[in-house]
Amino acid sequence: MTQQTRLVEVRQKVLKQNDVTARALRTRFHNAGVFVVSLVSSPGSGKTTFLERTLTLLAKQYRVAALVGDLATDNDAQRLARSGAPVRQIVTGTVCHLEAEMVLKALEGWKLEELDFLFIENVGNLVCPATYDLGEDMRLVLFSVTEGEDKPLKYPPIFNTADVAVITKMDLAAATEFDNAAARKSIESVRPGMEIIEVSARTGAGMSEWMELLAARRGSGRRVAPVANLA
Amino acid sequence: MTQQTRLVEVRQKVLKQNDVTARALRTRFHNAGVFVVSLVSSPGSGKTTFLERTLTLLAKQYRVAALVGDLATDNDAQRLARSGAPVRQIVTGTVCHLEAEMVLKALEGWKLEELDFLFIENVGNLVCPATYDLGEDMRLVLFSVTEGEDKPLKYPPIFNTADVAVITKMDLAAATEFDNAAARKSIESVRPGMEIIEVSARTGAGMSEWMELLAARRGSGRRVAPVANLA
Repeated sequence: MTQQTRLVEVRQKVLKQNDVTARALRTRFHNAGVFVVSLVSSPGSGKTTFLERTLTLLAKQYRVAALVGDLATDNDAQRLARSGAPVRQIVTGTVCHLEAEMVLKALEGWKLEELDFLFIENVGNLVCPATYDLGEDMRLVLFSVTEGEDKPLKYPPIFNTADVAVITKMDLAAATEFDNAAARKSIESVRPGMEIIEVSARTGAGMSEWMELLAARRGSGRRVAPVANLA
Repeated sequence: MTQQTRLVEVRQKVLKQNDVTARALRTRFHNAGVFVVSLVSSPGSGKTTFLERTLTLLAKQYRVAALVGDLATDNDAQRLARSGAPVRQIVTGTVCHLEAEMVLKALEGWKLEELDFLFIENVGNLVCPATYDLGEDMRLVLFSVTEGEDKPLKYPPIFNTADVAVITKMDLAAATEFDNAAARKSIESVRPGMEIIEVSARTGAGMSEWMELLAARRGSGRRVAPVANLA
């Protein structure tokens, strides 16, 4: 199909441009000493609740901020702002993912060197965000116990491009008859050795393990020599 | 951004081609006397469980079949086949939605005039499927009580292109402190007057109301004079 072939070609050029911007962002983040974590998941997996809790806990020790993407509304930015952290909403219109250029624009006026952690919550989508690098140090893919244990098998690219899998809403595991072993087997078969954490943002279960992981990754991230500035 | 403009242009041509194929499909469906229902939702909203139950109930009175789309695996086709209905999996690879052309190919060899209902379960995605007509008579958008009451506000295009909203996993409403009034208000503000049904495929609640709605829509659909064959 000729139109499809052209679509693929044009998409590849857009992706190439995205990679250039993402690389420049990554260099800026490294030079500023800010550790950047992005979050991807289906709509309704609990990204915002998890992130709100994360920001609130981290803010006791660190300087934190967040960007959040949605097709419409600034509901999530308002929710996250309750943590006290600076938050900006990126409204994507009909675009099903964030792009590096959107992140770049949203950061305007922020002094990155005054931050320890920056979080980027992507649009709720288990497909489109997979191929867009945002310059982040670590990408989380979240999925809730209510979604079914085979999500990793059905959406392999997003699990392949993420660093850590977060199983959310663990407080509903019993009510949904969640099969933990099956979920872990799904993740393992798509991305062997992937780090997995289990949380309930509602009860707070697993959050201290998550805080430790973040601190450790940020520490090891800082030990890496910054790459040359390509911006 | 020039690449973005080109991307939009090429996308529009692909959509135009999709509309031509979808229109031909719709004519075929009408002429064959089969009522076609598509289902869209986030990953993990319970489309497959809801559809499995629907097929099982309908099969007592009607001739039913289903197509199901996923990036990878034929897990859903296997689950749906337990209903006894003919089912085919459409594997989309990295494509985040079904297109009319994929439906056309998947139907090869099936005698549509021997069916009363055909269901098409889209890839789990609240963004991409919105703009692709599949020739269906009715489109359902599903969202579960675990996903948050503001999903319609955050993903307006998919609600705008659907005919009926189905709130799923009602058996978890109490455990998730689901705010029914807020959810209905969200739907109403995006798509005033949209029909809403509440179900629990697990307990069976709401399924008889759903069966009545299907029968009524199919009945009224059949009363419409078939449009000229454009295929």
